Amino acid sequence: MKPNIETFLACDASFEDATTVLFGAPFDSTTSFRPGTRFASRAIRADSFGLETYSPYQDKDLEDLAIFDAGDLELSFGRVDLALKDIKQQTATILAAKKRPFMIGGEHLVTLGAFEAIFEQYPDIHVIQFDAHTDLRDTYLDAKLSHATVIRRVHDLIGDDKIYQFGIRSGERAEFKFAKEHTYLQKFDFTGLTEVVATLKEKKVPVYFTLDLDVLDPAAFPGTGTPEAGGVMFPELLQAILEISALPIVGIDVNELSPQYDLSGASTALAGKIIREILLATN
Amino acid sequence: MKPNIETFLACDASFEDATTVLFGAPFDSTTSFRPGTRFASRAIRADSFGLETYSPYQDKDLEDLAIFDAGDLELSFGRVDLALKDIKQQTATILAAKKRPFMIGGEHLVTLGAFEAIFEQYPDIHVIQFDAHTDLRDTYLDAKLSHATVIRRVHDLIGDDKIYQFGIRSGERAEFKFAKEHTYLQKFDFTGLTEVVATLKEKKVPVYFTLDLDVLDPAAFPGTGTPEAGGVMFPELLQAILEISALPIVGIDVNELSPQYDLSGASTALAGKIIREILLATN
Amino acid sequence: MKPNIETFLACDASFEDATTVLFGAPFDSTTSFRPGTRFASRAIRADSFGLETYSPYQDKDLEDLAIFDAGDLELSFGRVDLALKDIKQQTATILAAKKRPFMIGGEHLVTLGAFEAIFEQYPDIHVIQFDAHTDLRDTYLDAKLSHATVIRRVHDLIGDDKIYQFGIRSGERAEFKFAKEHTYLQKFDFTGLTEVVATLKEKKVPVYFTLDLDVLDPAAFPGTGTPEAGGVMFPELLQAILEISALPIVGIDVNELSPQYDLSGASTALAGKIIREILLATN
Amino acid sequence: MKPNIETFLACDASFEDATTVLFGAPFDSTTSFRPGTRFASRAIRADSFGLETYSPYQDKDLEDLAIFDAGDLELSFGRVDLALKDIKQQTATILAAKKRPFMIGGEHLVTLGAFEAIFEQYPDIHVIQFDAHTDLRDTYLDAKLSHATVIRRVHDLIGDDKIYQFGIRSGERAEFKFAKEHTYLQKFDFTGLTEVVATLKEKKVPVYFTLDLDVLDPAAFPGTGTPEAGGVMFPELLQAILEISALPIVGIDVNELSPQYDLSGASTALAGKIIREILLATN
Amino acid sequence: MKPNIETFLACDASFEDATTVLFGAPFDSTTSFRPGTRFASRAIRADSFGLETYSPYQDKDLEDLAIFDAGDLELSFGRVDLALKDIKQQTATILAAKKRPFMIGGEHLVTLGAFEAIFEQYPDIHVIQFDAHTDLRDTYLDAKLSHATVIRRVHDLIGDDKIYQFGIRSGERAEFKFAKEHTYLQKFDFTGLTEVVATLKEKKVPVYFTLDLDVLDPAAFPGTGTPEAGGVMFPELLQAILEISALPIVGIDVNELSPQYDLSGASTALAGKIIREILLATN
Amino acid sequence: MKPNIETFLACDASFEDATTVLFGAPFDSTTSFRPGTRFASRAIRADSFGLETYSPYQDKDLEDLAIFDAGDLELSFGRVDLALKDIKQQTATILAAKKRPFMIGGEHLVTLGAFEAIFEQYPDIHVIQFDAHTDLRDTYLDAKLSHATVIRRVHDLIGDDKIYQFGIRSGERAEFKFAKEHTYLQKFDFTGLTEVVATLKEKKVPVYFTLDLDVLDPAAFPGTGTPEAGGVMFPELLQAILEISALPIVGIDVNELSPQYDLSGASTALAGKIIREILLATN
Repeated sequence: MKPNIETFLACDASFEDATTVLFGAPFDSTTSFRPGTRFASRAIRADSFGLETYSPYQDKDLEDLAIFDAGDLELSFGRVDLALKDIKQQTATILAAKKRPFMIGGEHLVTLGAFEAIFEQYPDIHVIQFDAHTDLRDTYLDAKLSHATVIRRVHDLIGDDKIYQFGIRSGERAEFKFAKEHTYLQKFDFTGLTEVVATLKEKKVPVYFTLDLDVLDPAAFPGTGTPEAGGVMFPELLQAILEISALPIVGIDVNELSPQYDLSGASTALAGKIIREILLATN
Repeated sequence: MKPNIETFLACDASFEDATTVLFGAPFDSTTSFRPGTRFASRAIRADSFGLETYSPYQDKDLEDLAIFDAGDLELSFGRVDLALKDIKQQTATILAAKKRPFMIGGEHLVTLGAFEAIFEQYPDIHVIQFDAHTDLRDTYLDAKLSHATVIRRVHDLIGDDKIYQFGIRSGERAEFKFAKEHTYLQKFDFTGLTEVVATLKEKKVPVYFTLDLDVLDPAAFPGTGTPEAGGVMFPELLQAILEISALPIVGIDVNELSPQYDLSGASTALAGKIIREILLATN
Repeated sequence: MKPNIETFLACDASFEDATTVLFGAPFDSTTSFRPGTRFASRAIRADSFGLETYSPYQDKDLEDLAIFDAGDLELSFGRVDLALKDIKQQTATILAAKKRPFMIGGEHLVTLGAFEAIFEQYPDIHVIQFDAHTDLRDTYLDAKLSHATVIRRVHDLIGDDKIYQFGIRSGERAEFKFAKEHTYLQKFDFTGLTEVVATLKEKKVPVYFTLDLDVLDPAAFPGTGTPEAGGVMFPELLQAILEISALPIVGIDVNELSPQYDLSGASTALAGKIIREILLATN
Repeated sequence: MKPNIETFLACDASFEDATTVLFGAPFDSTTSFRPGTRFASRAIRADSFGLETYSPYQDKDLEDLAIFDAGDLELSFGRVDLALKDIKQQTATILAAKKRPFMIGGEHLVTLGAFEAIFEQYPDIHVIQFDAHTDLRDTYLDAKLSHATVIRRVHDLIGDDKIYQFGIRSGERAEFKFAKEHTYLQKFDFTGLTEVVATLKEKKVPVYFTLDLDVLDPAAFPGTGTPEAGGVMFPELLQAILEISALPIVGIDVNELSPQYDLSGASTALAGKIIREILLATN
Repeated sequence: MKPNIETFLACDASFEDATTVLFGAPFDSTTSFRPGTRFASRAIRADSFGLETYSPYQDKDLEDLAIFDAGDLELSFGRVDLALKDIKQQTATILAAKKRPFMIGGEHLVTLGAFEAIFEQYPDIHVIQFDAHTDLRDTYLDAKLSHATVIRRVHDLIGDDKIYQFGIRSGERAEFKFAKEHTYLQKFDFTGLTEVVATLKEKKVPVYFTLDLDVLDPAAFPGTGTPEAGGVMFPELLQAILEISALPIVGIDVNELSPQYDLSGASTALAGKIIREILLATN
Repeated sequence: MKPNIETFLACDASFEDATTVLFGAPFDSTTSFRPGTRFASRAIRADSFGLETYSPYQDKDLEDLAIFDAGDLELSFGRVDLALKDIKQQTATILAAKKRPFMIGGEHLVTLGAFEAIFEQYPDIHVIQFDAHTDLRDTYLDAKLSHATVIRRVHDLIGDDKIYQFGIRSGERAEFKFAKEHTYLQKFDFTGLTEVVATLKEKKVPVYFTLDLDVLDPAAFPGTGTPEAGGVMFPELLQAILEISALPIVGIDVNELSPQYDLSGASTALAGKIIREILLATN
């Protein structure tokens, strides 16, 4: 009789064989408006069995890949520093084994822990961010480490002209001003993505992809803490993901699902489907 | 003082006068992921009174039609064979009275019961299916009779080149392969529908229309057991329905609403509106 | 220690300084299908703090405006006449102070109270209505004063050719007929809005803008009592609002959010965002 | 093929044969806090099929009774006067046929409509009220006709010492003072009920029984608009009902279920079970 | 990096070391009223981490026990026969290894699968059932295998005077009559349990304990498909469980939680706590 | 026209006149299982208008008291230290003005901020805690400041034999052991409270009262993050509160309501009613 191993759909390779390693970072202590992203990774794993392993979009099948699902980290609520340290450690372990880390958040701040490990390994890393919010504040509610400051902290590490932001439709005036001077920011949609992909290809730099699912319109994805009308729909997001998968993506995170705000389960199902498509496109 | 007769909006003709007979098939025993379609017909009937009888799309009014609503069958949970037999019997009775049956599911498997009666009456029947899923497995969880196998069972009856599938975006690789050889399958949307309608018109064959409401995007229709992103929106579905209504449709079913997964009631309201439009377009 | 003043996001000017005065009209006594709009103004105020004050659409910031939020009226449930009288009185007080009233409903009937005060001040007032429903019945359930008759009552006051209805997709046949003879009615969307704006500009008449949020598709806005598929999405509504903001709008209301039907909070968030955009566009 | 007649569990006698006539009064226009009782009668009818017809408490079976279920009245929202008139008319019709009326509310105000008809037939009527609230205000939000004034209106009709209130745990100080002078009021529970029953038996007067379900503790019955902690549990309520069933009860109502506030369905199920027990005890 | 093994709180022994083996039977195909028990075992496992391993009631700690959690069976929806066969097989495997099986349902019918294996091993087995319903019908909706017939099927196997039913408060008159002749049935509560325990102790027979959680009052346990008012509260149930734990219990099941009907999670938490207490009391 | 001041029911005195000052501490960053207590104070304030100002239990009326409601603090999520500092500062300000602070949490950790200010003012302070959990861990998830350690931190400040814990039914074995040596702990209920009150009266020490609402059974109070079966019901809690109100209570907090887990609103209503009763009993 076997123990009860739970993984994302068909991600049942051994750690040794795996090319990509999934893990959950169930943390939302700095979420200021409506918490709940801590429940995302578990919900996505459970509901992934409502999906098929085969993608008619890419004519590929998860069963042909080797993915290991490491389950969820146990992170300290109320100790942001410890939580980020544990995430960084997990990411570094995966990178040390020459595998690609794929983190499921949690609030967007978890990106920082993973990114620090990535940046140590890949000093010339560039970042593609799909998001409704700039996340470029310097501090938020007196905190330097916050879901609202995470990309600013990433900028602290890698500096100007390395962050590409798409789908942005919310922020303070000062954040948009900061973006104008320090990042590439495309409001509302994916206009210009093709050119950005071409540029990055030419530069031959490694890429980190951080997907805040609230880039989607709340019509498609109501299950998030800060629903912001005017986002993209699923086909546009899928198309954008297929485009960037031509790049050498060395780390990925998908964050900001709060499953309990969408009792229909449609947001969780969409998150799982997007993860399937990213896994298929990048492996 | 009159007894409490409950019908779908304005479907209050007598059985004798009616051209179309509505009935509910509240059954979801084989639903593997999330049950609840058993509640659909009752919810649609109740919430239909939030709609108007008049359609500004077609400039027609339900009050000008003669529809009889027979209420719901009482089906045996746990006895799939009995449930399908009862559905078949009900359909046969309606056909024998020279009326068009219009069944409200229930999970998609209920289609099989109705279709068997239709097929006995119309051996040259062709099928138009709008759906997110192929439903073409041979068995599912060791069962031949399942929501995931229902169109395969229909194919068992009528054979190749008589099933037209639109909007399909989920299935196993093997199901898509089967479709390539045995059915007409249009992925994702209604491309090609005009040609299919023209072909069928020419063939002068009777048509059975089975509408799995999950062909709609979960943004428009979250109230279903297996929400699958990337579907069509209401205007596209309405347009497709108006197109096929030019054909001699001899039987109809609308299935897979699970009202309890959409507490807003929007999915139930949409299902009711689609039923109104189908009734107006085909009568 | 200061008392607990609660306002819509950044609407914290004094009454004296304000150019626009917000107030809530939490009333839904005549709602026939599913009540709950009484909870809207309070929910919008609370959740407005999930929004930013800055609009990347208009490059404007609420912090640069002077808006006063007067909170909610306490209206008599079960006494429609008293409720409308209190709304009229509040609106008249705001107009007397030379400020623009901006009411948050409540069911659509609340428009009538506000409009009566507007009409006394501006006898040549014209009305722009965005709505799913015509609201042109003469009586509904034997009542002259009802959410379903409100625009007919407005017509009683101002007569023919002064009401412009957009996005309409539900009503009795007789209502559409009435519209053909007495109002301007655009089915389904905003086609013709540019011409209407040009005409009104030329006429140099003041305009009252009443926004029934169910003009939106339930995919974007499920939180309403009578969800009606086939509506507009957020970007179209925003675009239409920006267009009409070129007109001299002297009174505004936004109504028919029922927050409890959308547990995700996306409908409430959208309502707040639309209010922010209207405030920015018209101030 | 038969039309779809929907009744409360086993209440399928013809009007002629019936001793008791059930009907629903789905009205909640004056509800000031949280509406929704309009949905009660329909929900109770639908969920009654989760109950058995047999009561192990009384060793009686609904199948041995003759009850007619007349369905729901269509009442005018926003026209309190009309709604009450229609309820009175329905009750009078039932009384005229020498049957006992049994109304399912609706907010508590619906009692007034029924009671007016009862009072015309039985001028010496006495009232037993189980309730959390006194309902003894003279006006509420400037309205004479309100859920909060209904028993005061009943007192207007029948005068002092004819109203027996049990389980009361909420009201203004003035209401409790009024009760001290004009009614019999037992705070919190059913203490004294046995004596009251004895007294009424002796008096040989007909009795009207109005059951506001919020007399139950919200632990047992959360599905109500104004949950008030500290109420009785199901066994106490059942016991009290069995006690008063020794009296000549000539009219009954059960009100204030708001099914949508208890998604578990337990409140609706309890309401149905209580109705079954009242029917069995009084027939 | 370790795979993601998920167990009920602290039930992390190896199969070899374990004295008791937990497994889930997520099946509800025959549920006639409201399905959802298929979600129970997974929800209980997930939410068990909100509990402590230590019981202040028994001053015992799960960490001192050796329990193996085998996860959930994958059962065929729509094939009742196959589902029961798989459950029987799993139970037989556990018994063959000389361990005590502890099944988490699922609907009550799953008991039959487990019980058949138990009966083959222990022909003199006696049954203690805590339940709201008799479950003694011969057939239900034409099905012999149903949640409503399960104890009748158990009786078919073991015959008269071996089934002890407590807390029963719902059933057809005929079921209560059957009980009078063939089982020991205590209505409403646990009166007589002490005597029954004494009798069974004397008889020195092995005991199977089946706990239908709807024996609890819906106030304490609303998360079930058929909430039936008038049940026991948690302390009474706990006390009864402690009493019967003096007996040689060779198999256990806990069933009929439908977690989605209690959004508060209180029902799931209670189920987990009861399972902890049973494990502590019987190990 | 007046600004929109929102207070708890009838708590509308000026700060100067007030004897007690209410404020909210909407903070739940360290909540490890299910967050949401941040929404409590706002929900309680809003729903308090469903209560009456008059208490039939105490025959007292809130309108006769002078209470000031300062609204909610804006606390830093993710910076526990800052949040506690702000709470301490607010409490100290109230104490400096010679008024009694009454804080509405938030998670139980907020008690620590308030208590630090109390302790500076009253070095001989004793604590009465009603709670399901001991909250006596030394660290939790590596954090010293946590909802699970809060009473241990209080003990760090005031030492042995000054903390009285009632209703406790969950904790680690080590916590119960700690309690045995350092605090007074009554498992499950209020046994012994009368003696404790007598002792404290004699000692003539000031008392801080911290009420974790999860001391209530989830039947009465499901709206909390960690529902723990086996608690007290409302009448017992009310009785206990009336008993301790004989003591010189110099500070109060009520915490751990998570309103979103009880959609019925019954938990929020109960919290408001308890606050009303505490205000009436202690003023």
